[in-house]
Amino acid sequence: MFSAVRRLATVPAGAPWALGKLNHVAVAVPSLEKSVALYRDVLKANVSEPQALPEHGVTTVFVNLGDTKIELLEELGDKSPIAKFMEKNPSGGMHHICMEVSDIKAAMQQVKDNGIRTLTPEPKIGAHGKPVVFLHPKDCNGVLVELEEE
Amino acid sequence: MFSAVRRLATVPAGAPWALGKLNHVAVAVPSLEKSVALYRDVLKANVSEPQALPEHGVTTVFVNLGDTKIELLEELGDKSPIAKFMEKNPSGGMHHICMEVSDIKAAMQQVKDNGIRTLTPEPKIGAHGKPVVFLHPKDCNGVLVELEEE
Repeated sequence: MFSAVRRLATVPAGAPWALGKLNHVAVAVPSLEKSVALYRDVLKANVSEPQALPEHGVTTVFVNLGDTKIELLEELGDKSPIAKFMEKNPSGGMHHICMEVSDIKAAMQQVKDNGIRTLTPEPKIGAHGKPVVFLHPKDCNGVLVELEEE
Repeated sequence: MFSAVRRLATVPAGAPWALGKLNHVAVAVPSLEKSVALYRDVLKANVSEPQALPEHGVTTVFVNLGDTKIELLEELGDKSPIAKFMEKNPSGGMHHICMEVSDIKAAMQQVKDNGIRTLTPEPKIGAHGKPVVFLHPKDCNGVLVELEEE
């Protein structure tokens, strides 16, 4: 069925990199308190304490699920990166997925070589203190994809 | 910060159950071929062959990411459960998350006891041949949540 799929890979010489695990699925929520009640008390998940990250405009809670996690995000401050999303989705919703890469610059180069836009020209230091970059959802099947260097 | 969160858990006597890992994140896509090119060829993920599931109205491809996976879904036939979603999101998007539970009936009971609606009164056999149930997104922070018995 996929014998005719065009292979797009163009690994640049000298810049090998590897894709790692799914680091998290981010869910933006109107109330961390209600979400924590759902995941911790009803679904019995192992849930972290909330962490306010004013410089990233969110408060986060991690729902630990095996080798990966759901990251619950609540708006913090008046310049939150999830403000527009919450306006469109007042009940909340799935916001992005984050996959690990071994070398973010090499991964970005490969992504760009294949016509996939990044939201920033350079990696930024993300909420977990590691270099991250977001790929344009229009180039990723409507999904906001974060790559994080691990 | 959450000291005042009301603990909702009401585990029914004699029906203990455990939450397991994140089984998958489902992404509905207009073209599996293009998505496979992205995940396999650009992002270098390990990707399964497409599998047509006419009785479930989808063709699926699994992107294996550590202990979990992204499940790419393409509409199949004219009664696909993702038809409405694709109408609203023609570019695709994150469709649901699936978490494993050890005992789906006990989990459903607990969920119902806490006022969270299920989309069907009984579990159904899902696309992977296991009992599944979906929770109402309005009761789960805007997220369609699937529970799968493992």
